[in-house]
Amino acid sequence: MKKLVFSTDEYKRRLNLVKERMDHRGIEMLLVLDPSHMNYLTGFDGWSFYVHQGLVIDLKDPTPQWFGRAQDSNAARMTTYLPDDHIFGYKDEYVQSRYMHTMEFVANLMKGRGNTLAVEMDGYWFNAKMLLTLNRELPNLKIVDAENLVGWVKTVKSAPEIAKIREAGRITEAAMTLAIDSIAAGVWEKEVAALVSAQQIRGTDTYGGDSPAIFPIMPSAERTSSAHLTFDADRKYQKGDVVLLELGSARHHYHAPLSRTVFIGEPPKDLQHVSDVVVNGLQKTLAGIGPGMMAEEVEALWRSCLVGTGVEKPSRVGYSFGLAFVPDWGERTVSLRPGDKSVLKPGMTIHFMPGIWLDTYGFECSEPFLVTETGCEKLIEYPERLFVK
Amino acid sequence: MKKLVFSTDEYKRRLNLVKERMDHRGIEMLLVLDPSHMNYLTGFDGWSFYVHQGLVIDLKDPTPQWFGRAQDSNAARMTTYLPDDHIFGYKDEYVQSRYMHTMEFVANLMKGRGNTLAVEMDGYWFNAKMLLTLNRELPNLKIVDAENLVGWVKTVKSAPEIAKIREAGRITEAAMTLAIDSIAAGVWEKEVAALVSAQQIRGTDTYGGDSPAIFPIMPSAERTSSAHLTFDADRKYQKGDVVLLELGSARHHYHAPLSRTVFIGEPPKDLQHVSDVVVNGLQKTLAGIGPGMMAEEVEALWRSCLVGTGVEKPSRVGYSFGLAFVPDWGERTVSLRPGDKSVLKPGMTIHFMPGIWLDTYGFECSEPFLVTETGCEKLIEYPERLFVK
Repeated sequence: MKKLVFSTDEYKRRLNLVKERMDHRGIEMLLVLDPSHMNYLTGFDGWSFYVHQGLVIDLKDPTPQWFGRAQDSNAARMTTYLPDDHIFGYKDEYVQSRYMHTMEFVANLMKGRGNTLAVEMDGYWFNAKMLLTLNRELPNLKIVDAENLVGWVKTVKSAPEIAKIREAGRITEAAMTLAIDSIAAGVWEKEVAALVSAQQIRGTDTYGGDSPAIFPIMPSAERTSSAHLTFDADRKYQKGDVVLLELGSARHHYHAPLSRTVFIGEPPKDLQHVSDVVVNGLQKTLAGIGPGMMAEEVEALWRSCLVGTGVEKPSRVGYSFGLAFVPDWGERTVSLRPGDKSVLKPGMTIHFMPGIWLDTYGFECSEPFLVTETGCEKLIEYPERLFVK
Repeated sequence: MKKLVFSTDEYKRRLNLVKERMDHRGIEMLLVLDPSHMNYLTGFDGWSFYVHQGLVIDLKDPTPQWFGRAQDSNAARMTTYLPDDHIFGYKDEYVQSRYMHTMEFVANLMKGRGNTLAVEMDGYWFNAKMLLTLNRELPNLKIVDAENLVGWVKTVKSAPEIAKIREAGRITEAAMTLAIDSIAAGVWEKEVAALVSAQQIRGTDTYGGDSPAIFPIMPSAERTSSAHLTFDADRKYQKGDVVLLELGSARHHYHAPLSRTVFIGEPPKDLQHVSDVVVNGLQKTLAGIGPGMMAEEVEALWRSCLVGTGVEKPSRVGYSFGLAFVPDWGERTVSLRPGDKSVLKPGMTIHFMPGIWLDTYGFECSEPFLVTETGCEKLIEYPERLFVK
């Protein structure tokens, strides 16, 4: 029995936008391996992406072809709108094999279908051997870089997608509150991480959550000086700890990330100063964001708020997010940083995340926002301050 | 402050085995991008692998070089034994950029260090653009496929590693028991998934767990006909449901996977028959496994147990597992299937997982085992049967 998250029309709308870009660039076939892109275009879901699987989008075929491990074919039948004659399971001998390669199977699917193929050269899922194998199997095929073609289409969300992100936002709020409430001197870090993870799955009273694309980032003390550490499995929180919480929950794989910082005890003056500067910068920047601005202009606006404060922020201050699977809820499209000429458009969802990581501690306070027709709108309403316990 | 999971000697032992293989194959430099391989060789930990990071192993340098995003450099300082002069953070402009590529930075690290570089052509983390960029930046460098060189070294575990896997096994047992106890008609699937996820992080009374490399696989009803579906976020269990539980918990990223099946109500005769056949096959095969056997011989032994039962199993029945990050706790080395000539050696840990996925339902009962000097040993003792609720 098929069970789809969105209407077939919504999936076809997305496919049409992808095909328009293919057509403009003279691409006849597109190989889609990223599980979030597969989900975006067909609904395909399942933790089967640890083996090679994907879609072949053929400009001349109204329907994408799914390929994957035979034992995952039923997942394609149940979670996508694709008809059986577009679902191709390969035999198990191809799986993680030293003797044969899945791209030999995929080359057969593609044979005679066109002269130009685009692949995600710099994506997570298209590895070097796939390219070498396709080159060998289809020597006359011109293979070009799709340059995150699906990712760019996906960056502008439709109303049903924004509704999912808002639903995820309610889960993130609940998880954040549970984390802040639970953190105290003497509590195991793992216990708070367990509560957060359970809340992310449990969701709300009316709908469930999902496994997030990034596990809760929640370092304490000196570990807050680095950007992507999780909890310490064998440590209890102590008085004097700063704790970073970067939590993103998901609803049907649509994420809503949020960061806040907790201090256990009396916060040092320098941390409070950093907090004040960041919160002020967040609020002033959000007030100035609107459609038509370039990503680098948003960053410049933020940077102007730091002048004279002594606070420095050398890395990007935000990125587009949305529908995602591990390892990242970011979309690798829009980055808020100098030089990024991406133009903000209504329907884009961006995590404004000016994390500060200093030599011995860090501070995080972030806001996920939606670009609207007239400005921007926070996707989560959560107090912007240093939380003191 | 550095905090390592294993002794520096243990990390150096591993590095020496990797270098021995490099030397035998005439490889001067090895690029290691897989986060589980980075962790294996240096201890590096953190959810920063969504941007490009890695190690350069130089046969002539006693110490690996770490490279990654500058804001993650402190994670390298805290979680590895590497000295500061072997930690190279790149500036943020390289991150997920359309304008420049991290492999330009890495090429600079490698320049003048040797003539032969091995990379993981078919790994998750070495994408096609990395290869194209290295080829362009270092045109005189010979780049060869490492063919999962580190993965093969890692497949044979030391005593301290096996101890971690046993610790993970205690967490998996607790999670499995919690899942089986909680499943009942009328219970939300997401609620059981939340309890399992929390238990995986909470660990035991004496130590914490970790985020697993594969999210709990726990489909119900018709969804059990596919291999890798998780819970349904908006469904309650019903009488007559079959529920698959493939749960792997982790301790310091060392996994212990286990599968069992639950039926709510009176199980149909065909499901009970499949269960009896699989459990009998598991037990007879485990009794016959010993070091020196080929992987394909283990599969043949299993297959001989199916003769005349009517049960068929067309896919591989097991694989090596251990230290892992998303998306897979498998090691992509040993597969229990026809044609795999890998020889079982003491210290290997293998998930014997003869999952059965039929047209309308599935059945799973699996055992993770350790190859010993004289035979094999189950890493988890858990009742082998169909659980009826």
